[in-house]
Amino acid sequence: MRVVDLIAAKRDGHEHSAAEIGRLVEGFTSGEIPDYQISAWLMAALLKGLSARETADLTRAMVASGRHLDLSSVAPFVADKHSTGGVGDKTTLVVTPLVAAVGVPVGKMSGRGLGFSGGTIDKLESISGMRTLLSVEEFTAAISNVGLVVAAQTADLAPADGKLYGLRDVTATVESIPLIASSIMSKKIAAGANGVVLDVKVGRGAFMKTLKEARELAVAMRDIGRSVGLQISAVLSGMDEPLGWAVGNALEVNEAVATLKGQGPPDLLEVAYTLGAQLLVMSGKASTTDEAARLLAGALESGAGLQKFRDFVVNQGGDPDFIDEPALLPQAPVQVDLEAQSAGFITSIDAEAIGRASVEIGAGRAVKGASIDHSVGFVLHRKIGERVEEGESLVTVHAATQADAQMVLPVLREAFRLGADPVPPPPAVIEVIS
Amino acid sequence: MRVVDLIAAKRDGHEHSAAEIGRLVEGFTSGEIPDYQISAWLMAALLKGLSARETADLTRAMVASGRHLDLSSVAPFVADKHSTGGVGDKTTLVVTPLVAAVGVPVGKMSGRGLGFSGGTIDKLESISGMRTLLSVEEFTAAISNVGLVVAAQTADLAPADGKLYGLRDVTATVESIPLIASSIMSKKIAAGANGVVLDVKVGRGAFMKTLKEARELAVAMRDIGRSVGLQISAVLSGMDEPLGWAVGNALEVNEAVATLKGQGPPDLLEVAYTLGAQLLVMSGKASTTDEAARLLAGALESGAGLQKFRDFVVNQGGDPDFIDEPALLPQAPVQVDLEAQSAGFITSIDAEAIGRASVEIGAGRAVKGASIDHSVGFVLHRKIGERVEEGESLVTVHAATQADAQMVLPVLREAFRLGADPVPPPPAVIEVIS
Repeated sequence: MRVVDLIAAKRDGHEHSAAEIGRLVEGFTSGEIPDYQISAWLMAALLKGLSARETADLTRAMVASGRHLDLSSVAPFVADKHSTGGVGDKTTLVVTPLVAAVGVPVGKMSGRGLGFSGGTIDKLESISGMRTLLSVEEFTAAISNVGLVVAAQTADLAPADGKLYGLRDVTATVESIPLIASSIMSKKIAAGANGVVLDVKVGRGAFMKTLKEARELAVAMRDIGRSVGLQISAVLSGMDEPLGWAVGNALEVNEAVATLKGQGPPDLLEVAYTLGAQLLVMSGKASTTDEAARLLAGALESGAGLQKFRDFVVNQGGDPDFIDEPALLPQAPVQVDLEAQSAGFITSIDAEAIGRASVEIGAGRAVKGASIDHSVGFVLHRKIGERVEEGESLVTVHAATQADAQMVLPVLREAFRLGADPVPPPPAVIEVIS
Repeated sequence: MRVVDLIAAKRDGHEHSAAEIGRLVEGFTSGEIPDYQISAWLMAALLKGLSARETADLTRAMVASGRHLDLSSVAPFVADKHSTGGVGDKTTLVVTPLVAAVGVPVGKMSGRGLGFSGGTIDKLESISGMRTLLSVEEFTAAISNVGLVVAAQTADLAPADGKLYGLRDVTATVESIPLIASSIMSKKIAAGANGVVLDVKVGRGAFMKTLKEARELAVAMRDIGRSVGLQISAVLSGMDEPLGWAVGNALEVNEAVATLKGQGPPDLLEVAYTLGAQLLVMSGKASTTDEAARLLAGALESGAGLQKFRDFVVNQGGDPDFIDEPALLPQAPVQVDLEAQSAGFITSIDAEAIGRASVEIGAGRAVKGASIDHSVGFVLHRKIGERVEEGESLVTVHAATQADAQMVLPVLREAFRLGADPVPPPPAVIEVIS
């Protein structure tokens, strides 16, 4: 079958065979099929859809395009976690040390932030000396020696996905649930874990704005994982307001450490426990999520989670002194408070606006490859449902310059909505899809 | 606006402004916008549609990409004609000399055949010495001196269309009525005629298989033409069976000459008179189509049409002797008859199958740029509704070799369906949309 006939078949809503999908992915990766044919196919796939079977086949073809790690000699069960991205999402830095401290090794590859959503690798690079670009040998050694590793995605895992994503990014074909699901899952599968928990963020500060879309994406990813024999479940978590209090790389690392010391924001802790419990049950360390949550809370209270985090930092070359002395993390020279102009209850905090404002002051990047300032960001002092008095600080802006801080204050003011009556805080965890 | 945002807008079903469409066409033509973005946009446009306004703007942008002939100094009214392509469609060779003979100059640019559908330029090249690649100066001089010119499409008219069509051809984005309409009309508008009649073929031997699609295309083209001030109308004509008796380049030229001598097939003559009448009314030469048809019939009966054809051939360097001595046209060495295996009435003749069989024996080309054999083809002896006795010839195959002829006989046999009862012949002209 000619490539143009495959495009026509998708255009007309037909289902491809596994061989046809393999042909498209291999041909594109090798350069035999030109990008202009693949971009037409991508648009047809976005508008006409891909079945669950096609999506799984696409994922498998992308995994087959590169190296597929085999961790079976490293540990009997390796856990992994993925977030679809949000504002203030430092969950990885809390959940992975706790899970590892309970005795379930975690091997995770992670990405950098783009747009309003941050990335774990950027956050880790706030730590002096911390290496995130690891060889496969370093990655697997860290799993056996420390039980926890978080490294940057390597280019030899699912290279077809990287090439395809580059094309989707410039052809308005990112926003397809099957394409998003297969992109994420191809990297997770190639990275070799046995069990994966997905944190699918929902709300204005997330890629998925509605519960319906988030569920659809969660189910699509779970079904792909199952089709290749992964243990997998998904947690839908709220992202209408930022997660926790801190937004910005060093500020979030600091908040994660505080959380491991028992001083974290409740919503972050709830999401971390829910995600971690899924992994403990998958691994067999716990038989129920309640038992698992108790184990995680125990690891937090005993300090075992914090110790695991310290070991993890040291193992990847980071200087761990910031754990005891937070001022050793990068500090922004300017701190400006946004004060409430009247008393009231916080009724909403626009997470996307806050995420975009963080990009404006340099905490994130608008385009790939741009450099970021690890020190800058925001610390919220009020979350939805809490009361503020006139003149109290809603949020502290940590900025490189006064001008930067003044630039985002109006945006931040607009992002906070106050009302006369209290509203219930939004749920941190919405549902678990297993 | 970034190109990716324009693609996203079309993907989401929004309407582009004229400036946005101009940006896409100019950017693509200049090479500034890469083909992979345009192919994604084309697929989105195919699946989400283009409004009549967008289609007209797209056409105007393609016209603006190249030279736009101004024939106002050549003649007060120049006529043009376009067919969407069919099997045995030699109408141009009949209608244009008749219209020109009545005194309305015709300046037409034409294409080559591809797939089951033939092209006028290929047919004309059956004539020894005939030149079809004319300069603009030769084209306009022919209109003033002879009143009739048919030349190959020049590359400097609507170059954006040529580039866009090349991309559509390999990305399964040909089959879009707005894109087809704008492609055809951009070339017609750029060629500078004042009045255009469109012959939209409908049926199994045409690109448009249903009356609904054909009407849609006809209306889309008419609306584009009107939006730039052209006089324009469309004729929907039947293409379930081949038009006339001959299929193949020299065989069709011969049939066109026979028709101008008064010995043509009735369906071809009906289509030619209907198309020609539209042009005569547009030009003001006739006030009704009935009057126009009488003028055309007069030009045929007087021999003025044949004389105009002869002048046209001579003007473009062709040797006109074949007009009096048809054997001077290329002759295939092998002639084989397909005989009816039983008596009966012809109930259908699959024009597409016959068109494809003609490509098989070399009368047409499967891929662009392939060479063709002008001598080969078919001459039908029966059309739908006619009776045949057992052993009588249904069609004569003119082939280069016995093997070629034998190869297509089973296909031809399959293409003819016979029944016990007579059926009415299908209408040659279905309707006129003006």
